[in-house]
Amino acid sequence: MINASPDLRQQLIQTPQLHPKHGQLRHSPIAGVILTNGEIDAVAGLLSMREGSPFTLYAHRRVLAILKANSIFNVLSEHNVKRREIAIDQPFELALPDGTPAGIEVLPFAVAGKGAWYLEGAAHPNGEAQNDVGDTLGLRITDQATGKSFYFIAACAEVGPELKQRLNGASLAFFDGTVWRDDELIAAGLGYKTGQAMGHIAMSGERGALAALADLDITQKIFLHINNSNPALLPGSEERKAVDRAGWQIPADGMEVVL
Amino acid sequence: MINASPDLRQQLIQTPQLHPKHGQLRHSPIAGVILTNGEIDAVAGLLSMREGSPFTLYAHRRVLAILKANSIFNVLSEHNVKRREIAIDQPFELALPDGTPAGIEVLPFAVAGKGAWYLEGAAHPNGEAQNDVGDTLGLRITDQATGKSFYFIAACAEVGPELKQRLNGASLAFFDGTVWRDDELIAAGLGYKTGQAMGHIAMSGERGALAALADLDITQKIFLHINNSNPALLPGSEERKAVDRAGWQIPADGMEVVL
Repeated sequence: MINASPDLRQQLIQTPQLHPKHGQLRHSPIAGVILTNGEIDAVAGLLSMREGSPFTLYAHRRVLAILKANSIFNVLSEHNVKRREIAIDQPFELALPDGTPAGIEVLPFAVAGKGAWYLEGAAHPNGEAQNDVGDTLGLRITDQATGKSFYFIAACAEVGPELKQRLNGASLAFFDGTVWRDDELIAAGLGYKTGQAMGHIAMSGERGALAALADLDITQKIFLHINNSNPALLPGSEERKAVDRAGWQIPADGMEVVL
Repeated sequence: MINASPDLRQQLIQTPQLHPKHGQLRHSPIAGVILTNGEIDAVAGLLSMREGSPFTLYAHRRVLAILKANSIFNVLSEHNVKRREIAIDQPFELALPDGTPAGIEVLPFAVAGKGAWYLEGAAHPNGEAQNDVGDTLGLRITDQATGKSFYFIAACAEVGPELKQRLNGASLAFFDGTVWRDDELIAAGLGYKTGQAMGHIAMSGERGALAALADLDITQKIFLHINNSNPALLPGSEERKAVDRAGWQIPADGMEVVL
């Protein structure tokens, strides 16, 4: 939001809930965190949110079980950080830490994915199957005042008919852009896993995100969760041009998105 | 080391083990990590060291048990990250990941401390007492070529006669400088714990670090682990002046220390 228009910037400055409270040390304006999976890059940041500002942590029971089984997450005290279970296809309303409704509804839905890789070969702490529905969520986020909504899907292994139907007609979708091609990490000598093995669809290819979402009516399409091995990150690359041609955006710091 | 002399800087540039390897993506020159306690600020950084560069993780069995009980640390694969148990009063030699001796000997010793606070009220994963010897280590680190050594003590709840005797005559000691006064976090409204409750001696006071170490012959005394609530961090503060007068240094980025 750094490059917001002067009007919007003024509005942001006048919106106290978006800023640390003046004169209050170590205050954080973050009122809630929604975990869409239990992967290390989704949960490790919680360990930096331990300074006492209250917030609500929303997650599927499978992910809550991982946090519970890892005592290190006790740095988030029960007093300050309420853990709230969310369930697939059950919309819920976000609230500020004092209980005030935030005017935002969130609908979690299942997308193809996989369990956290640091649990591979181990039993899931919940005693359930190792990889199962609930490990990877997409979100539809709706402004209850205007009814406008957008989609957030940071990890998705496959775009099936159900997901296509859901996204068709959307105003805005943030979508998993981890890798350009499935074997990219292996080819670069950075790892031994394919994108699929990590639960991520590639951007390119016959079954990639660009092809799978090409025929849908989505006003704004923005990739996120882009790995630093993905050549589409490089301005001017052939891959970036292909992304541009397909009507997708690669976001940058300070980017402003208006619904 | 940013402010190193031109000669030293040249030497650092020519010392390949101090830099990421040229042309090798995601290489880290960090060959080993020694955990001196299991506190969140000592272990959370490990989660950022998961990109595949091999290193050795040295820790007391009580701390290794915490890592083992928290599956999230499986992001450090056994293949790349060997976990090596170290024991009190048993010196060991550091080695590079390929087994080459690094020419550095480390002697861990027990100092007064406490267990990790995120385990408070829970059983220690090792089945041992909740707070016990081994939770907090000091280190003597010796260059085997020259015999020169220094001390590293990032957490210490009390300076007793044994520690005084150990440190007397040292060339260099890095020492716990978390808080200026014991109730500092409470007074600032930042928390409800004293320094003692967190396992840290204060800098000031009759039993503080400045007083406790005043009569010892230590050539260089440098505080570390300084909390952002500690007024001695502020250049020009009365507390900083008192630290200066007592012959201690508050380190800064780029500071060069020569044994």
